Order: sequence, then C-alpha cells, then structure tokens
Amino acid sequence: LNKLNLFIIACALFANMIFPQVLNQEKEKHYRETALKITREALTENVGYELLRELCEIGPRLSGSENSLKAIYWAEQKMKDMGFDSVWLQPVMVPHWDRGNIESAVIAGTGKELNISALGGSVPTPDEGITAEVLEVKNFEQLDSLKEKAKGKIIFFSRELDHGLVNTFAGYGGAVDQRSRGPIKAAAAGAVGVIIRSVTTLHDNVPHTGMTSYVDTLPKIPAAAVGNIDADFLSDALKKDPSLKVTLKLNCRTLPDALSYNVIGDIRGYEKPEEIILTGGHFDSWDAGCGAHDDGGGCIQALESIELFKRLNIKNKRTLRCVFFINEENGIKGAIEYARFSDSTKQNHYAAIESDRGVFTPKGFSFDADSALIQNVQKWLPVLRTAGIEYIRKGGSGVDISRIKNAKALIGYVPDDQRYMDVHHSANDTFESVHPREMQLGTAAIAILVYLIDLEGF
Amino acid sequence: LNKLNLFIIACALFANMIFPQVLNQEKEKHYRETALKITREALTENVGYELLRELCEIGPRLSGSENSLKAIYWAEQKMKDMGFDSVWLQPVMVPHWDRGNIESAVIAGTGKELNISALGGSVPTPDEGITAEVLEVKNFEQLDSLKEKAKGKIIFFSRELDHGLVNTFAGYGGAVDQRSRGPIKAAAAGAVGVIIRSVTTLHDNVPHTGMTSYVDTLPKIPAAAVGNIDADFLSDALKKDPSLKVTLKLNCRTLPDALSYNVIGDIRGYEKPEEIILTGGHFDSWDAGCGAHDDGGGCIQALESIELFKRLNIKNKRTLRCVFFINEENGIKGAIEYARFSDSTKQNHYAAIESDRGVFTPKGFSFDADSALIQNVQKWLPVLRTAGIEYIRKGGSGVDISRIKNAKALIGYVPDDQRYMDVHHSANDTFESVHPREMQLGTAAIAILVYLIDLEGF
Repeated sequence: LNKLNLFIIACALFANMIFPQVLNQEKEKHYRETALKITREALTENVGYELLRELCEIGPRLSGSENSLKAIYWAEQKMKDMGFDSVWLQPVMVPHWDRGNIESAVIAGTGKELNISALGGSVPTPDEGITAEVLEVKNFEQLDSLKEKAKGKIIFFSRELDHGLVNTFAGYGGAVDQRSRGPIKAAAAGAVGVIIRSVTTLHDNVPHTGMTSYVDTLPKIPAAAVGNIDADFLSDALKKDPSLKVTLKLNCRTLPDALSYNVIGDIRGYEKPEEIILTGGHFDSWDAGCGAHDDGGGCIQALESIELFKRLNIKNKRTLRCVFFINEENGIKGAIEYARFSDSTKQNHYAAIESDRGVFTPKGFSFDADSALIQNVQKWLPVLRTAGIEYIRKGGSGVDISRIKNAKALIGYVPDDQRYMDVHHSANDTFESVHPREMQLGTAAIAILVYLIDLEGF
Repeated sequence: LNKLNLFIIACALFANMIFPQVLNQEKEKHYRETALKITREALTENVGYELLRELCEIGPRLSGSENSLKAIYWAEQKMKDMGFDSVWLQPVMVPHWDRGNIESAVIAGTGKELNISALGGSVPTPDEGITAEVLEVKNFEQLDSLKEKAKGKIIFFSRELDHGLVNTFAGYGGAVDQRSRGPIKAAAAGAVGVIIRSVTTLHDNVPHTGMTSYVDTLPKIPAAAVGNIDADFLSDALKKDPSLKVTLKLNCRTLPDALSYNVIGDIRGYEKPEEIILTGGHFDSWDAGCGAHDDGGGCIQALESIELFKRLNIKNKRTLRCVFFINEENGIKGAIEYARFSDSTKQNHYAAIESDRGVFTPKGFSFDADSALIQNVQKWLPVLRTAGIEYIRKGGSGVDISRIKNAKALIGYVPDDQRYMDVHHSANDTFESVHPREMQLGTAAIAILVYLIDLEGF
C-alpha cells in the first residue's frame, strides 16, 4: 500500500461520501419518460378528481354512519371495476358517535346565537341545556391559575392558532390541545361545559370540529367549537359583561360500536408478489362538508396512483396494494385492525405511502426510514421533479400506516399546506375546495414514487 | 512536492469543487432569526393583503384608463405614507385601447350568443358587425393547408392549452400564438375576423383576453376570445353545420396614446446608497376582474417586501427601490422608459426582483445571472426555506426588469403556478382569488432574499 494507492483509495471513499448518488443517465432518461407519461395521463384524464366528485355526492363519512358504509361499498365496487386482482372488505368495529340534530349556544337574555359544532365524542347536555357563566382562558396554565373561578362555569378556551407559523400543521398542533384535552382540564376544575375557538387559519364563522376526550375519573362535560367571528364576539361580550351566561344545548350521543370495514385492493406483482407496496389514506371523515381534502381526496390519490399502472400498462414487480383505512378521526380502529392482520398473517410490506395532508400542489415526501435509505433515494429527485416534488426528507409518515411493522420505509406525501386548515374538519371541506390540477399532480407524484420503489428498490 | 502533499492539495481542491458553499453557523442562525421575524410579521399583519383589497376596490387598471391613474396616485400616496425617502411618478406615454361597450358573437339564425371578450388592441367591427362563415383550425399549419377556404371567413382558432404539461406557463406558451398572431395569419389568408378559444387551464365559460397584434402590410381584422364551454359549443355546431355563420360585433378602439406613470419609491441605504436593489411588478392589468394576481398582488408584494425593513427596523446598506411598472400588458412602455432613465442617468442596479407569476405559495427564485453567482447563493437556501423557498435556479426574471442593464442578478419570484392560468387575463382575477397566507408568504420570501442580497452581497 504505497502513498499513491492510499491517495486513490482515499479519493474514492471521499467521492462516495460527498458525491450524492445519481441514477445513470440512461435509467434517468427512461424513468423520466415514464414519469412524464404518468403525469400527463393524471392531468389530462382527471379520473381521480371525477371519482372524488362521485364520492362527495355520497356525503360525509363519519365512522359508523350509514353514509360511511355506502361509501365503503362504492369504493369496493370501484376497485373491482378497475380490475384489481383482489378486493376485499376487512371488518372492524368502530366507535359510533352521532351529532344529533340539536346544537346551539345562546348568550342568555340577548338571543345572540353562536355558530357552534359539537366536538367529536362529546356527551350531550340535558334537554334543557346547560346555562352557566363563561370563563375565558387562553390555555391550561391560565385555567389552573383561575381554578377557583371555574367551578360551575362553561370554560371558553379562546387561544387562536398561531398565524405566524409557516407550517399550518405546526399552528394547528400549538392550539389543538384546547380541543383534544379541554374538557378533561375543565372538568378537573369543576366546570360544567366547554366552548373552544375553532382551530383554523381562516377568520370566518364556520366551526371546526374534531375529536375530544374524557377520562373515567372525572365528569364528562359537553364541548363544542365556535366559529372565529363568534369567538371574537363572545370575547368582546365577556369584556363588557363578565357575568353573562350562555345556554349550551347538544343532543349528540355515543351509540354502540358499529361494524365497519377497511377497503383493500391488490394489483399482484409479476416478480415479487409477496412484497407489498401500500398506498393509502383514511376513508372516514368528519360529518360537515364531505371530507374532500380530509381524506377522501387522499384515498382517491392512493387508489388512482396504482390504478395508473394498469391504465398505462406499466408492469409492477411487487404487489401494489391500496388501503382505505376507516376511523382515523375518532379511534384509529381501522389502522389498528390492519396492523393486527399484517402482523398475524406476516404480510411483507416493502413500503407504505399515505396521503393525508390535503390534496394540494405537491412539495415533497416525508420518509420515516433509515438515514442511509433516505440519502440513497435523493437520486430519484430528478425524476420526481417531473410532478413537482422538490424534496425527500426524514419525518413522520401518516397515522394509518405508522403501525405497520418491518416496512423499509413509511412515507407521507407532503403537499402545500397553506389552505389546509381553512377547510379541515369543517363544512368548508367540500369538493369545490379541491383544485383538479393540484389533486391530480399529487396523484402523479405518488404514482412516480411507487414506480421508482418498485423498479429500483431501496 | 511529495505524494502526501499532492494528496492534501488534491483533496482541498476537490473539497472546494464538491462541497457546496455554506454560511457559517453563526451567520445562518442570525439570518434565520431575521427571516422568521419577517415571515411572522408578514403572515400575522396581512398588510399587503389589505392593501391589495383597497387596490382592487379601485377596479381594473388597463393602461391609459382613468382607473389606472387613480391607482397610480393611490400607490404614490401609500409609498409616501409609508415614509419612503423619495417617491416619484415617472411620466411615460402608453397605448390607450378601450374595450367599448359592445362585444357580441351570435350564431346567425339561432340567437345563440357566445361569451366573448375582444382581444387587447383589436380593431372594431363595423356597427352592423361582421357576419361570415366560420373556419375552425387548430393551428397555423392547418390554416395554411386550408388557405383556399379561409377567404371571407371568420377563423376560429380552437386549440386548447395542453393540460398535460405540469408547468402552466409552458401550456400557455404552447397555445398563445393563436391569440398573439392569429389575426395576422388569418388576414394573410383573406379572413375577415378571428375568434380564439380562451387560453386557460379552467374549463369554464369565462373568456380570457390578452394582447393581439397586427402588421401594417395586412388588413387589421377584429378578434375576440371565447369561453371554453362556448368554444366547445361552436366546435360541435360547426360539425353539424359547417356553413353556419357568426355575427361578430365589437366597438373597441385605440385612442391616442395617454400620459401615464411608473411609480417609484426609494428607501435609502446607509452604507452604499448608490447601489440599488429593485423590487417590482407591473401595475397595469387587463380590464376584467381587477388584476389581483396579474399583477396587483405582485406589485404589493414588491412594495411590502421592502416596507417590512422599515416596519421591523432592519437597516438596509443599499438603497431599496420599489417600481410599479405601467403597461406591461400591451406595450411594455413603462419598462422601456425605466430602462431609458436607468441608462441615461447611470442608475447602479445591484439586483432586481420581479413578482409577476401570481401570488401563490412560494416555490423558488429564477436567477438570470452568472452561473457562479447562482452556485454561490445556493448557500442561502436554508434561510430562504423559512418562507418555503425550495430552490434557486437559472432562468428568466420578469418582463419589466429584463431591460435593466448591468445588474448582477435579475430575479423572478416563482410561486406555485397550478391555479394561475385559471384567472389570468379574465374576470376570474379577483381579490377573492387571492389567498392571504399564500400572498403574504411570498412577500416574506422576497423580503428575505432582499435582506440576504443587501447584507451578504453576491
């Protein structure tokens, strides 16, 4: 080992360390051609967008509801019509909460009605409602410090989502504790009800619901979200009259668990059929709007992204599997059941990709995987850029696929999120809020990633 | 020079070649703090978005129109109110085309009215209109091949924008020849009028206008764009009855050139006041909608991005100059006049940034600059990512700044473009089509780039 050899070896090691791995030119050219074909097909035919239109016409898909079953059977039929090699419904019992037909919050003596929506899982009020003074707090610390005032009152958690954060999921994450744990904290302080300011980026009056929770050791008190304009109104009214009372009426209820299903469709691989590349989303939604972005659109992207292989006659070595998970919003029972099935039958997942951050313009993919794998797949970016994907980064994947064990990579599709919290969990989440090109480009991005994983492997 | 030394030197050269240049950690931390401050301020205060609301209330700003002057005086006053060190109106004569109040296209004998909009610069029809048979062609080649049939007819250029292209500007570029040169090609074939399918990504019935052109050696024939739904209708009707006639009436006209202005405001630099970093957009718009995306929003981003320096008390070494160029849509006279002024008074432009691709979520910056400079500024990406900027690439800048000589970099702000051609040059380009977070995030991105250029230089 003389110095020249040492030099050569060092350089080689160095180059390997520094040079990002790249696809060879011929491969890249070929992959880019396929990526262009996929993208063009997705953008011109709008198959997924039109499927989403049909799905939205069925209505919202809250777990356990009649509509959710209609949608499940619709999806099963669609996968069959598309010629998937196997399509089946995986049974799972899900929570069945129902909003009822009464929800109102009136400022006593004024007739002023606040625009509210019961939080998912909330207990009802008595028929005559709950009439109580309102204590406004910004956070749990403030509630603690005002504990002696909370007894017998309705707690109004009024902290806004932080609009100054670029990532709207971070903004959401910083405010949603009021919704998810507000009733526990309020009950602990002796309160009788909860109203929260809707967690949203939009300053309108549409209430945004979402799951709340209770503990068995404390009273379960009713809880609702109020639209932001009415949240401002209530805040102002409380400044003028701190002893004003609100009458809250809700007749929502939790019914016995209901039978529901994950919808599962496979396109068998020709070379390694035992290895599964899964695409998925969650098929349940909240019960306002139609869950177009959250997550009907994501499910349809998962579906079309593998159906495109059939349509464009692209042969898949591995088995492509689309899963519409049920009950992500209020129980995650679908994901738990799929993971149980996967473990007990030793399903061999090679990779799983979830779309559950809205169906807006593609930005990147978030990989829950080994760092070396992530480093290695950076070489696919010149191909993925065809559909607007600018990065692959380490990060979380998706709630539904995160329970799958032994996959080499769990992957979250990351679109632009600036408009997502405008519609999330609310009546704003309609088919009309989805832009066809944005959605279809995302479908293409996922399809191209599936294509690369299938062909190149990790 | 022994082999070990050779090894060390080679490694050093190699590292220099391969390692991307990076900011030192302390600098990056400091810059990121400022970038976060800028982004937070932009997203929470919505100053630009509210200015755009005011601007849109004035109405559209077609060059030479009364509205355009109202808007110019409004902008001058805003810059003064913001405490800019100098604000002035740069006079320039601009074309003055006026749509008039008659535009109709009726399928003779059926009463079916097509939804049209005269193309910018079109000549009028006679008062009684032009009634003629219609020859549909997809492109100029087809027109050439059907030349003998074109005489005396209205040519219907019906080629759609290619929806299969990811970049909507590329789609637009592939179809807009019909609009910009259709009347010349049609007149050369002896036709008497032109109707074009609107160049847009949206399948609605809103016509999209834009500049057309004539040559003095050929008859000038009237021309209008038709909404896509009516374009389909006309196409179908022609299949059933190839001899159907359309009566086209337009009373648009070209008035004598009018006095107008570029609006220019400076914030003087404390260290190198003679070096100018320019931000700009074009202030004129088409006369439907209010030019919210094209390019009122871009102008306001250019304005707020430097006004943020004053608001946040960030000192600028170089002079920051905002320019609202007039007449980009139908003459570029504002840009020409600014370049003339710049050349004749030896204005020292260090860099210029234009926002004229809509005010959607930030994606990147397109640099018209030397490759080494572009390589060097990649090190700013970790800072620019604060506001969602994922890349800096070589490419075009903007129509208005492209005439500026000797700047080290001419830069185009690149937002997501998926929805841009939906609204471009049409009644869809309203204030309501602008999303506050998307617009404000773009403003922050531009402000951060100005900050880095000012502090770091190239």
